[in-house]
Amino acid sequence: MGHKGIRTALKVDLEKPAWEQPGLHNRWHPDVPFSGKIANNEVVKIECLDWTGGQIKNNDSADDIKNVDLTQIHYLSGPFDIETAEPGDVLVVEIQDVQPLQDQPWGFSGVFHKQNGGGFLDEFYPESAKAIWDFEGIFCSSRHVPHVRFAGLIHPGILGCAPSAEVLAEWNRREGELIAANTTSRDVAKPPEPKSAHAGSAEASLKERIAKEGARTIPGRPENGGNCDIKNLSRGSKVYLPVHVPGAKFSVGDLHFSQGDGEVSFCGGIEMAGVITLKFTVMKGGMAKLGMKSPIFNPGPVEPQFGPGRYLTFEGFSVDEHGKQHCLDTTVAYRQTCLRVIEYFRRYGYNDYQIYMLLSSAPVQGHIAGIVDIPNACTTLGVPMDIFDFDVRPEAEVVKLDMGSCAFASS
Amino acid sequence: MGHKGIRTALKVDLEKPAWEQPGLHNRWHPDVPFSGKIANNEVVKIECLDWTGGQIKNNDSADDIKNVDLTQIHYLSGPFDIETAEPGDVLVVEIQDVQPLQDQPWGFSGVFHKQNGGGFLDEFYPESAKAIWDFEGIFCSSRHVPHVRFAGLIHPGILGCAPSAEVLAEWNRREGELIAANTTSRDVAKPPEPKSAHAGSAEASLKERIAKEGARTIPGRPENGGNCDIKNLSRGSKVYLPVHVPGAKFSVGDLHFSQGDGEVSFCGGIEMAGVITLKFTVMKGGMAKLGMKSPIFNPGPVEPQFGPGRYLTFEGFSVDEHGKQHCLDTTVAYRQTCLRVIEYFRRYGYNDYQIYMLLSSAPVQGHIAGIVDIPNACTTLGVPMDIFDFDVRPEAEVVKLDMGSCAFASS
Amino acid sequence: MGHKGIRTALKVDLEKPAWEQPGLHNRWHPDVPFSGKIANNEVVKIECLDWTGGQIKNNDSADDIKNVDLTQIHYLSGPFDIETAEPGDVLVVEIQDVQPLQDQPWGFSGVFHKQNGGGFLDEFYPESAKAIWDFEGIFCSSRHVPHVRFAGLIHPGILGCAPSAEVLAEWNRREGELIAANTTSRDVAKPPEPKSAHAGSAEASLKERIAKEGARTIPGRPENGGNCDIKNLSRGSKVYLPVHVPGAKFSVGDLHFSQGDGEVSFCGGIEMAGVITLKFTVMKGGMAKLGMKSPIFNPGPVEPQFGPGRYLTFEGFSVDEHGKQHCLDTTVAYRQTCLRVIEYFRRYGYNDYQIYMLLSSAPVQGHIAGIVDIPNACTTLGVPMDIFDFDVRPEAEVVKLDMGSCAFASS
Amino acid sequence: MGHKGIRTALKVDLEKPAWEQPGLHNRWHPDVPFSGKIANNEVVKIECLDWTGGQIKNNDSADDIKNVDLTQIHYLSGPFDIETAEPGDVLVVEIQDVQPLQDQPWGFSGVFHKQNGGGFLDEFYPESAKAIWDFEGIFCSSRHVPHVRFAGLIHPGILGCAPSAEVLAEWNRREGELIAANTTSRDVAKPPEPKSAHAGSAEASLKERIAKEGARTIPGRPENGGNCDIKNLSRGSKVYLPVHVPGAKFSVGDLHFSQGDGEVSFCGGIEMAGVITLKFTVMKGGMAKLGMKSPIFNPGPVEPQFGPGRYLTFEGFSVDEHGKQHCLDTTVAYRQTCLRVIEYFRRYGYNDYQIYMLLSSAPVQGHIAGIVDIPNACTTLGVPMDIFDFDVRPEAEVVKLDMGSCAFASS
Repeated sequence: MGHKGIRTALKVDLEKPAWEQPGLHNRWHPDVPFSGKIANNEVVKIECLDWTGGQIKNNDSADDIKNVDLTQIHYLSGPFDIETAEPGDVLVVEIQDVQPLQDQPWGFSGVFHKQNGGGFLDEFYPESAKAIWDFEGIFCSSRHVPHVRFAGLIHPGILGCAPSAEVLAEWNRREGELIAANTTSRDVAKPPEPKSAHAGSAEASLKERIAKEGARTIPGRPENGGNCDIKNLSRGSKVYLPVHVPGAKFSVGDLHFSQGDGEVSFCGGIEMAGVITLKFTVMKGGMAKLGMKSPIFNPGPVEPQFGPGRYLTFEGFSVDEHGKQHCLDTTVAYRQTCLRVIEYFRRYGYNDYQIYMLLSSAPVQGHIAGIVDIPNACTTLGVPMDIFDFDVRPEAEVVKLDMGSCAFASS
Repeated sequence: MGHKGIRTALKVDLEKPAWEQPGLHNRWHPDVPFSGKIANNEVVKIECLDWTGGQIKNNDSADDIKNVDLTQIHYLSGPFDIETAEPGDVLVVEIQDVQPLQDQPWGFSGVFHKQNGGGFLDEFYPESAKAIWDFEGIFCSSRHVPHVRFAGLIHPGILGCAPSAEVLAEWNRREGELIAANTTSRDVAKPPEPKSAHAGSAEASLKERIAKEGARTIPGRPENGGNCDIKNLSRGSKVYLPVHVPGAKFSVGDLHFSQGDGEVSFCGGIEMAGVITLKFTVMKGGMAKLGMKSPIFNPGPVEPQFGPGRYLTFEGFSVDEHGKQHCLDTTVAYRQTCLRVIEYFRRYGYNDYQIYMLLSSAPVQGHIAGIVDIPNACTTLGVPMDIFDFDVRPEAEVVKLDMGSCAFASS
Repeated sequence: MGHKGIRTALKVDLEKPAWEQPGLHNRWHPDVPFSGKIANNEVVKIECLDWTGGQIKNNDSADDIKNVDLTQIHYLSGPFDIETAEPGDVLVVEIQDVQPLQDQPWGFSGVFHKQNGGGFLDEFYPESAKAIWDFEGIFCSSRHVPHVRFAGLIHPGILGCAPSAEVLAEWNRREGELIAANTTSRDVAKPPEPKSAHAGSAEASLKERIAKEGARTIPGRPENGGNCDIKNLSRGSKVYLPVHVPGAKFSVGDLHFSQGDGEVSFCGGIEMAGVITLKFTVMKGGMAKLGMKSPIFNPGPVEPQFGPGRYLTFEGFSVDEHGKQHCLDTTVAYRQTCLRVIEYFRRYGYNDYQIYMLLSSAPVQGHIAGIVDIPNACTTLGVPMDIFDFDVRPEAEVVKLDMGSCAFASS
Repeated sequence: MGHKGIRTALKVDLEKPAWEQPGLHNRWHPDVPFSGKIANNEVVKIECLDWTGGQIKNNDSADDIKNVDLTQIHYLSGPFDIETAEPGDVLVVEIQDVQPLQDQPWGFSGVFHKQNGGGFLDEFYPESAKAIWDFEGIFCSSRHVPHVRFAGLIHPGILGCAPSAEVLAEWNRREGELIAANTTSRDVAKPPEPKSAHAGSAEASLKERIAKEGARTIPGRPENGGNCDIKNLSRGSKVYLPVHVPGAKFSVGDLHFSQGDGEVSFCGGIEMAGVITLKFTVMKGGMAKLGMKSPIFNPGPVEPQFGPGRYLTFEGFSVDEHGKQHCLDTTVAYRQTCLRVIEYFRRYGYNDYQIYMLLSSAPVQGHIAGIVDIPNACTTLGVPMDIFDFDVRPEAEVVKLDMGSCAFASS
């Protein structure tokens, strides 16, 4: 009856290395040991580190971004044993709240170096960059991206239940085939990586096996959701997750104070350590009942609302920057859309990396507009005009402002 | 001062073949003769045929869909000579209203046959299908997709200015290269097609040249927008269009009473004949001033609003239906997302074609969620739950209803 | 099936005096003859004159406002005979659309002279004033109130079913008692007024009786709704109306292109002639079933949306302009709130009458905030900042603009 | 730069009597000693007790409500000395966040006994009643009002700056005159009340003077705002407050997890102890600059959003329950509107006190619709249908549910 506070199912320690904390892990595997038990219909709080486990600091250099160790990511909290959950069930998770940790009211967004992570626009923006965002209640602003301020659409980048052995094998098969077939110079997927694998409280031999077999947490996947980075999966949302192992083995992490559709700079949400309040309910036999192959969700009622007429919306098409025509390639179209935004906001004095990170962090709306009219897919990207403290409408006069700079790496 | 009505710059005739109406055309070409003159800052009404020029009838057979002549599409109204507009300017077009023609309060959506047009899901749904939608003021409903009703997010699928000769040449080059390189059995683009070309009031020799050189209106293109099918480019929107030829040669058509993001069934919006009220303002030198390569727009303030918590949102990933992993392929991800929706709503008794058309016509929200986490792009598709007259929440009991059927073609 | 247009149940004639049109009437009385029949579940269009019956002209003088004949108002369309409706039923009316008449794309708002109608602030603003509003699709603007433009929240000021003889007697009793008890110099209610009474197609003796007994249409009343002037009873709304006589005798009129909460200048919405599309459904025994004493409604989904953060909201309390404290008098509080708005916007160069009419016509939000904390009621009035084309935020610098003037009466 | 947490300017102690905490006070008076200093442009957290200072307990009896000591209310946190603020300035206060105290995730709403506080409907509901609301992140629900759940529109009921001696004298004059003129059996205002006055850290003689002269905090007042109970003055709002004394002497309290327009049951918001995060900025000479007599505010962007079509809206008129006609009395109209809501929801099995409290606590929208059409004011009250877990639309079948009961006092 709520006489006392909600139970905290997992606490994190900001002073201790992430890999020494047994309630965390950074690989998907059915055998990561449980880090706690949660009753059916229980509400708990779960603390999370930022996704890098504290590698990025609140300062004015992007050296930490440049040198980030990506074998460590993402540190997730869990997995939790959800009472009564069995394979074939659906785990209904209500996100009742997400907050930054009280003692750390700031987060970061970054552009990874093309040689170490990269991002959606790394052909154009190969260097490392960083912006620190300060939280003021529901708002955030950044000394690295001035004249901008907005309310967070706060959410977890990752939540999901562990794969079964079969599901994990399928992941490794299909991603392995993609890697094997790759003829480009770019990575197309990340195979299991023993280095820096963290298997929670697993003892040595189990840990070694998990490190060898465990799927990376980088991509979201159809069977369990995972790293979906869906900005609207915010406070008040109810998400329906397939269960593949007994107890569900639910994990959560990669909390974002805010993020734009696409999270284009890769380290692109406003990454933070925080605490999430979740209610868990098991829907028996839910996968069959719902005809469910991938997670579905019902968003919450309290998103920041700008009014439909308060966006400036850019269009992009599947013709790339070399004038090459692609056929209904939505990814090419969205990249072009992002470039159009950068070209527009450059007029005010921002450097391109600042806009790139803003696009990645602010609650921009990325829509698939048309996807059938060969050869062009068309996507749109709506930027809320009210996040700026100056007038960005096309008909307003352009006045260049002192935009300072985002943080860069030392050369 | 508005003492009298707004001028109608073009009337269409529902009783006369589209190809006999000199104010219409169906190819993009700089030399299509002007169909009228509009002053800078003038507000006018422009009537439009439905995009097929009246080929589809209000009945219960999809034979007309199956046999549609796609060489005729899209019949556009224009091109109009906008006073003072010169290449390099931006034409600012405010959409002040869009309405169905008063005597034809109905529209249609269709699934084209895989051999004649196809659609986004034609690998799964190769047959022809049709739904007639009746308009009741701001609402629409269909005898072919029962238990659904919604307010239209009414908009033009196509608006844009004519290409210059150089821009047209570039279109033909790059799309020609794509066609030349195509090794699949699917069309990847449509080259100029003399058959059924309509060049407005062009005399014979000019018409022949336009028919030979003119770009098809099927795809949207970065240089002029065109067939973008952006559902939010609705009433109250202001769109900023690049001008490539003297007088702008602005055209508009393909009016939709409603459409979902992606317009997935191809003939997917609720297609209608109607009248659009537009205000035209020339921004001199606007392309350079705005750093503009593609159109941008500011949406209107009066879209139907469901509340953020009134959607059921589906997730999809770039793993195809054969279990093949694609690398950050947003098109694959969106196709999977659409399939997830069909699998869910099938439970209530709809046939798949009904849901496919509903997805295409109702104001569903298609978002690019994550696009950097190799190898999976993640897209979401939000279906507004309040368009159904029964309870579609996952936790509600499923009761099969009599869903009748959409129209199919005779075999 | 919508093959053809929706039936127009009543046409009005802009060229003919209102009192000569038998489908109109301007008194509530159970015996006004039916002006047409509408089937249960039918959708019809009904044309309406503006509420004054055309007395106000599109010009720059408020003489017509000053001399308006208020014994004529309001001209309503109807009453209609709704098939199967009986006393005790509820008539469910869906407002499917409201549009200005195509040939008259303008409307007016006015401040009545204190001696002829007055308004909420007539102690402060006793003179006559007028503003003409031009319609551009969904938007309106006025040469008399410059630098303002907004989308209409279009709606009927009046709809309702005729009173039974008993209900009419009750109205006349209680309003008569109020008039009898009045010791102030202000009118407190309007008794039946034979002058200018219009009883539709009633023959002479019936007309005379109606003129003598009929209730004025000025106030809304709990039993039938009537002149509620509820701005959100707009397109898409479904209103549930008590039925008091066989056939319901439904009437509608007083169409507004837009209106602010309170409609404070009395002739305060943007008054227009127009056409409303309505669907009628009878809910048998609805009054008992719903426990209904007064109308209820479910608003539509397509209101103009500004975003919650795009309002500037003023507070007012029940202390009047003389420093006199009133106890929980919400009317006093709202009057003070209105005055606060005028004091604020005066800074930009508007005259007070311009702001007064703007307050009355624009979609401002008037809320009852606190109504229990003796002695002060507190009301708020939210003005959408985006209707102005200049920056009205308190922190923005004030630049006086050329605001011209509204129309005044010749002295 | 936010490296460390935001400073907490005042902590409250839940275990200690409110009157022993020197940072609190419960009277408005210019001489209450400062309880802390805040820099211009500083962001601080301020903790607050619930308005009664902890008199109401989380149990199932309303005895505490019945016997509440109202001479103690409201315990406010402050007053704070805002650096540089002088009379004539405006204090701009941004509400960056409001949260319940972490260890007390519940609140209460109550109906006061007619003999001890009463409420807006106490002629109908004279007894005491109580509902305890449990907080689950952004949501709340109550074992005393089942089948209802909603996201909080969290806000402070009271904030404002201290009156000057002149302003205080004016308050005492005008409210004294109202009391003197009162001929009814009801209290119309509350004069200064020495009993239980708490003057913060004032020493004995000062305390005695404050107790004698200090204005009660019960009503909001035009000069400083105070107890406005404006539900939309929520997170993200910026409020502009007149400054009357050096240092502003800002106080805040009466936090509500949620509240409906009017806060009709008096103890009607969901009252809670909590912490509010505020940013203070002084606008020099702001009162003259803004032409300001009463506070104004700009609401925040993150209110719960239901969609305009998701309300059921009730109408009420200024005819009272005895059939007596009042002239444009908005208070009478709103009372009738509230009664209409209770009559409607009674159908589902709720007792009237449950609905009364729900109306008071849930984010219902109370609008002034028409206020000029003599003799009837018309108000509306919109109830968001989605706060119920059953179908409350008029056309849905009524199924009585087990609604248990709210807490009542022992007889």
